[in-house]
Amino acid sequence: MQRYFIKEDQFSGDVVTLNGEDAHHLLRVMRARPGDQIIVSDGREREALVEITTIAKDQAEASVVQWLSQDQEASVAVTIAQSLPKGDKLETVIQKGTELGAAAFIPFVSSRTVVQYDARKEAKRLDRWRKIAKEAAEQAHRSKVPEVEDVASWQHIVEIATQYDLALLCYEKTEATQGLRTLLTQARANWLQADSRCQASGQEAQASRPSILLIAGPEGGFTEQEAEQAAGAGIQLAGLGKRILRTETAAMAAIACVMYEFNEMGGTS
Amino acid sequence: MQRYFIKEDQFSGDVVTLNGEDAHHLLRVMRARPGDQIIVSDGREREALVEITTIAKDQAEASVVQWLSQDQEASVAVTIAQSLPKGDKLETVIQKGTELGAAAFIPFVSSRTVVQYDARKEAKRLDRWRKIAKEAAEQAHRSKVPEVEDVASWQHIVEIATQYDLALLCYEKTEATQGLRTLLTQARANWLQADSRCQASGQEAQASRPSILLIAGPEGGFTEQEAEQAAGAGIQLAGLGKRILRTETAAMAAIACVMYEFNEMGGTS
Repeated sequence: MQRYFIKEDQFSGDVVTLNGEDAHHLLRVMRARPGDQIIVSDGREREALVEITTIAKDQAEASVVQWLSQDQEASVAVTIAQSLPKGDKLETVIQKGTELGAAAFIPFVSSRTVVQYDARKEAKRLDRWRKIAKEAAEQAHRSKVPEVEDVASWQHIVEIATQYDLALLCYEKTEATQGLRTLLTQARANWLQADSRCQASGQEAQASRPSILLIAGPEGGFTEQEAEQAAGAGIQLAGLGKRILRTETAAMAAIACVMYEFNEMGGTS
Repeated sequence: MQRYFIKEDQFSGDVVTLNGEDAHHLLRVMRARPGDQIIVSDGREREALVEITTIAKDQAEASVVQWLSQDQEASVAVTIAQSLPKGDKLETVIQKGTELGAAAFIPFVSSRTVVQYDARKEAKRLDRWRKIAKEAAEQAHRSKVPEVEDVASWQHIVEIATQYDLALLCYEKTEATQGLRTLLTQARANWLQADSRCQASGQEAQASRPSILLIAGPEGGFTEQEAEQAAGAGIQLAGLGKRILRTETAAMAAIACVMYEFNEMGGTS
C-alpha cells in the first residue's frame, strides 16, 4: 500500500491533510479517489491507515481507519558516514541504504575526497539527498525517514565515533584490520550477553537499540594517517573480504551484512 | 595494481601481448611506461604479474615476473538470475554483483517484466553487460570474469534450478516464505556436515564449490502462479526482511548476505 510521510501538524485528531507534492502524487500518479486507503506516518510517533475523503489538485483529506504501530524499524541503528564520492553516487548510497534500514547518513570530507565543496550548492544537494531518503523510506515501507546530516569534516567523524556502540571504518587489509564478520559477531554476542545479564538481575533489558557507525571512504580510500587516527579513537578497521569494492558498493554491502547479522534480512540463525 | 583480462592466446610462454582497448587504456589512461608492472589474467587458468617491455598506441608487450594463483574467487558460486528491470538497473546489478563475487548472471523475462524484448537490440545490450562484468572484475581484483548469459525465459530458470545446490526466489512474505538467513544457515550447515562426513570416511572433501541460484523479480515482483511454480520445482521462497527492497537492491543485498554467510565479506564466525 502506498505510504506518505507527512508533518506532525498534518494530523488533526482523526483527520489527516495531504498537500503539495503528496497530493499531486496521490491524484496524478496513483489516480486515487475518495474511498481509497493509504498509509501516512509523521516519521516519529504516529502512523495510520487512512481513507481518502476528499481529493483535489492541491489538497487531499483522509480519515483514520486504524492507528498502526511503528514496527518497521530495524533492531540496530546504523549510521552511514560516507566520504563524498564523485557524481551521484551518494544518491545511490542514500537510496539503497534507506531501503536496507539505515537510521542516518553523514556525508563528510576526508583527505582524498575529490569533490569540490561548495556551500551554496550544498544546500541544494542536501535538499535533494533528504528527498531521496524520504522517497526511499516510503517505497521501502519504513516507519521513519533516516536523517541526512550536513556535510561534516573528517575530524567531526572521529570525534563522534565514541557516541556509537561500535564504529567501523571500511579499510583494505593491514595488520590492524579485522574481518567485518568477526567484528560484528563479537559485538552482537557482547550485546546479547549484556542484555541477559540485565534480565538475570531483574532489570529491564537495555532500552535502546545498539548503534553502529559505518564509515566508508572516497574513491581513493582513506590515507594511512586517517586509518591510524581512527584506530587511535577506538574506531575498528574492518576488512570486507578479498574483492575490492567501489566506494558506494562498500557502504551498501556493509549495511546489508550488519542487517543480516542482526536477523533483519529475513530469518534468524 | 591495475588488472587486465586477456584472451588465452595473448599468452605466449612468458610473453604477454596486450592490444586494442587494453593497450589504449594502459597508454592513455594509466600512462604506463616500459618497466611498469600490471597483472594479467585469462580468467581461467593463468594469472601473472608482468612487466611492460614495449608499449605503443595499439599494442603492448610484457614479460612474466611471477605466476599468480587464482585465489580471489569466492568459496561459493552464486548465479544471479534477474528478471529484466527498467532502465539501466541491470547494469547496476551486474557491476555490483561482480564486485561482490557473483559467478554468473542470467537475465530473464517473467510475467511482470515491463521491458520490451528486442532480439536485435539484445545483442548490443549483451555486449555492454559483458563489458561491464569484465571491467568490474578487473576493478575488484577478481581472477575470473562472471558470465552474462543470453536472456532466458522464466521457464528456463525453473528448469535449471535443480542444477544448483540451493535455489532461492526473493519473494515477499507468504506462508511458504522462509527468511533468507534461516535458509542460508541451514544450507551451509548441511554442506559443512557433508564435507566432514567425506573427510571422516577418508575421502577428499567435496571437490566443487556449493552453487546457489539467486532469483530476483522485476519491479512488480513475481506473480503468485510463478511463486507456486518455483516452489513446486524445489526453489525456496526467500524473504529479505520487513523492508521492501527495489528489484536491483534485492539482488545486491542478497548476494552480499550469501557472501557474508560464507565468510567471504571479511572475517569468520
